[in-house]
Amino acid sequence: MVDIDHSNYVIIGGVAAGPKTAASLARRLPKSKITLFQKEDLLSYGSCGLPFFASGDLNSIDELVVTSYGVPRDADFFRKVKGFEAITGAEIIRIDRAKKTVAGKLIGTGETFLHRYDKLVLATGSVPARPPFPVAKSPAIRYFTRPDDAVHFRRQAEQGKIGKAVVIGGGLIGCEVIQACADLWGIETTLIEIQDQLLPYVLDADMAAIVRREIAGQNIEVLTGIGVERITLNDAGQPVVFIPGYNPITADYVFLCLGVRPQSDLAGDCGLQLGKTGAISVNEFMQTSDQDIYAGGDCAESIHQITGEKLYIPMGSLANRHGRVIADHIAGVTQPFPGVLGAFFVKIYGCNVGAVGLSEAAARKAGLAARAVWGTFPDKPDYYPEYRTFVLKMIYDNVDRRLLGLQAVGTGDICRRIDVFSAFLQHRATINDLLDFEHGYAPPYSEALDPLHHLAGIAEARQDGLDIIGAGSVIQSEIRDAVWLDVRETDEVESQPLPAGDVDHPESILNIPLKQLRDRVKEFDPDKRIFIVCKRGVRSYQAACILKAAGIRNVTILGGGVQALQ
Amino acid sequence: MVDIDHSNYVIIGGVAAGPKTAASLARRLPKSKITLFQKEDLLSYGSCGLPFFASGDLNSIDELVVTSYGVPRDADFFRKVKGFEAITGAEIIRIDRAKKTVAGKLIGTGETFLHRYDKLVLATGSVPARPPFPVAKSPAIRYFTRPDDAVHFRRQAEQGKIGKAVVIGGGLIGCEVIQACADLWGIETTLIEIQDQLLPYVLDADMAAIVRREIAGQNIEVLTGIGVERITLNDAGQPVVFIPGYNPITADYVFLCLGVRPQSDLAGDCGLQLGKTGAISVNEFMQTSDQDIYAGGDCAESIHQITGEKLYIPMGSLANRHGRVIADHIAGVTQPFPGVLGAFFVKIYGCNVGAVGLSEAAARKAGLAARAVWGTFPDKPDYYPEYRTFVLKMIYDNVDRRLLGLQAVGTGDICRRIDVFSAFLQHRATINDLLDFEHGYAPPYSEALDPLHHLAGIAEARQDGLDIIGAGSVIQSEIRDAVWLDVRETDEVESQPLPAGDVDHPESILNIPLKQLRDRVKEFDPDKRIFIVCKRGVRSYQAACILKAAGIRNVTILGGGVQALQ
Repeated sequence: MVDIDHSNYVIIGGVAAGPKTAASLARRLPKSKITLFQKEDLLSYGSCGLPFFASGDLNSIDELVVTSYGVPRDADFFRKVKGFEAITGAEIIRIDRAKKTVAGKLIGTGETFLHRYDKLVLATGSVPARPPFPVAKSPAIRYFTRPDDAVHFRRQAEQGKIGKAVVIGGGLIGCEVIQACADLWGIETTLIEIQDQLLPYVLDADMAAIVRREIAGQNIEVLTGIGVERITLNDAGQPVVFIPGYNPITADYVFLCLGVRPQSDLAGDCGLQLGKTGAISVNEFMQTSDQDIYAGGDCAESIHQITGEKLYIPMGSLANRHGRVIADHIAGVTQPFPGVLGAFFVKIYGCNVGAVGLSEAAARKAGLAARAVWGTFPDKPDYYPEYRTFVLKMIYDNVDRRLLGLQAVGTGDICRRIDVFSAFLQHRATINDLLDFEHGYAPPYSEALDPLHHLAGIAEARQDGLDIIGAGSVIQSEIRDAVWLDVRETDEVESQPLPAGDVDHPESILNIPLKQLRDRVKEFDPDKRIFIVCKRGVRSYQAACILKAAGIRNVTILGGGVQALQ
Repeated sequence: MVDIDHSNYVIIGGVAAGPKTAASLARRLPKSKITLFQKEDLLSYGSCGLPFFASGDLNSIDELVVTSYGVPRDADFFRKVKGFEAITGAEIIRIDRAKKTVAGKLIGTGETFLHRYDKLVLATGSVPARPPFPVAKSPAIRYFTRPDDAVHFRRQAEQGKIGKAVVIGGGLIGCEVIQACADLWGIETTLIEIQDQLLPYVLDADMAAIVRREIAGQNIEVLTGIGVERITLNDAGQPVVFIPGYNPITADYVFLCLGVRPQSDLAGDCGLQLGKTGAISVNEFMQTSDQDIYAGGDCAESIHQITGEKLYIPMGSLANRHGRVIADHIAGVTQPFPGVLGAFFVKIYGCNVGAVGLSEAAARKAGLAARAVWGTFPDKPDYYPEYRTFVLKMIYDNVDRRLLGLQAVGTGDICRRIDVFSAFLQHRATINDLLDFEHGYAPPYSEALDPLHHLAGIAEARQDGLDIIGAGSVIQSEIRDAVWLDVRETDEVESQPLPAGDVDHPESILNIPLKQLRDRVKEFDPDKRIFIVCKRGVRSYQAACILKAAGIRNVTILGGGVQALQ
């Protein structure tokens, strides 16, 4: 029998999962010996806060390494407060699983050491994905993953040395970095994304199109579906980005935000099983193929809660939760990690973006009978001052009505709805469960029915035959020979006409305010397809009911209304 | 077989549950005849918005009766848009269940009418609870339930005629009304509540004490535990409020916010079963004891999802959800109403207050093995600009670890956490499920671990022996002979010393910053009880671990820290 109370625990990695595991272990097993090795000098820095130091939102990078009461989270802090040893500047080079030792060297002195473990925890994190094109060496061409990157950029920006920046990669970090460049510093910024949309993999194309519309005209040029050929330096030492079919872009600064890959070499070298994603394979207790070695955070593989698929989702929040599961399991508490749902938020200018669960594309790819509904909603009653709006897209399973995912874009409070939806997904809830949701209601915060109730109601209507498409997915071929029915009031139509690009034949737009529709149903050719549009989608739904009750069947509503058009 | 498509549906009541039921029915059964009778002239007004018209937040009361696109929700609107007849100024006087008719009269003309129904829906709402003390008649002494009340008050306030107001009743409406009086209009306001705390029944006393502290010094005097004796008028016609042991309070305006009672006379008169609460008894499909008569909204009784107890919770949000359940059931869709969880929000100045589920007191009363944990949290990382904080109290069952309730008070974003917790309660979740919650994480919105994760972690620690009390419940007798250990940094203690009232013997306060504690554990008398306090509760938890590891067992932490003290 192992004496877990007096064992020797070794943790490799000191940013998120590592310190969290060590601290939890020290609380649970105060008599054990816990040693954490960190290659860098900094420990437990809020790496997710780096874009906000770069942007100028934070005054000092120190704010990312001190506690809320001003004490730095250094080795001394971890020893005295958290009860474990953290050794910085110590690189682990080899794991000997047979002898249960780790071998390393102190970077400062070159001195080597050997450390025995009973249980080992790998929290080795991630490294930036290497660009698939040639890149010249320059301090002005950087990843955006380490404090140095943010510090260097900010110093240059503060000195007014950056007039033009290029961000390569339109994922979560890329989007945070364009905000960091263009907002406070006013840097003219070009974003280049090889996929056909911003935030690929995590948002559907129609929702990503709304994000793109929201950030348009903010010093930002967004180029999608375009791969970079190479990045060179000109005679003045400035980076030049070459992209096929465009003039080369000369910039003062280039960020390579191409995602990260798991730092799993140490694990692979000692024969631990790696997944197809390249991350370390773990079971539900975060144990690797060696039961005395755990892995957590950005180096470990995840399982999707809905599809069961193995995937790689590096997220600071998951890393923290991994840490708890690992410490619990070592201490004899067996609460499995349930897998991931892929919840995220990102702020791009005033636009809040978030999602949880599967996108429609991902759900289809996983073989699910995915359907979607859309709506635009105020985040509190629109009679209340300072309400804001957002567009939601909900994905559910057409067969068993199970909820699959939610995406949100807008200036309103999307976070509440994403987090609530995550709780529903965790419990494998259905549309019906969402209808039963009891939200808090008071006009300064919410409406009598939450947007999630409305979405569930629209999903029910869709199951009963309502046809709905996302406003962002309207394509020209579908709307030839269709009639557009705009049920907004005349003054609304005048102040925000339908974008010309959305309709081929302006003569086919009928504006009939909703209140007149019931008396004018005879005006419709029952053989033509009708697209109904309004401001947010609510009136279109009502209009579809009126037309259907009058026997007009070929009716499609534009989910989210003109507020959700690109 | 009844032909539900072509039946005759009658709805009594036109504020929330009534129009919602009628509109849903009309969508589901467009060929049926749906008639709604409303005694007043106004239909479907946002009655929950009245305090915000009174307060000046809304410019016009019309905003509460028009759609977001400016069309009034009148009988014409309901006929043309929603597809049902709404007859205003029509009071239903009698229900004949045998003949399936309702008898009424038109208030304008006195004309009587008889209307046949196949199914009848009672949405008769509530009326203000009558004060248990004598009240003089005056336009300046009012309930706060109808548009007139808000309009009259606001007109007087705008004309500067109200220098002093008294609000009787410190429940949800009373709290909204004191804000309406004292914030924009700057009216000196006295709130009188007969219970010993603000927001009785919905908040525990310790959390209510924090609300009271938050609103202190805002033109508001709060008197609790005091019953009003009578309200008379002086020679100038001003209301005078008599309370025992105080000087009579002369005011320009008095609001009676003593809650509401169900308007169930019509139901009682025709022999429908009423509950002990006085509200109409309904089953899970909102059917009364007569299966052809439904009841929803403020006139119907509710069942608590956790205790199964029958109770009366009048809420606009419930009314809307009732409407859907009733319409569904009539149309042959049997989705039961799951009961209520009691979610609410209320804004009092900048202080956000909310709760869902059972309070600790209510859980104990229901015979549950309720335990509580507390914490103060920032609503995003405290390195991020403009973060705000809040105090949370979570109640759970000590035996099966089931979650029971959450209460929140503070300037930060409490709504997200209350709504998420509600989703967990709906799924009968445990502490472990809460640890598995996957929230969205990005510094502008949230931390790597959500406050709910921290609370679940503290609850786990409590189950493992951590002793914690709410800072708001500290009583003098408990702390005599105890040592107070303040683990904050010296500068924090200097800028916000422990309130003198909390500790009898200042000499028993030890200030040892957390980082020094491990080296100074020998200074403690192991026989004395130690209360640990910090700013928010996190460091106290860490300090308790350090003391316990050193063999000092009689340790209690102050949940929520000094930020949660009264």
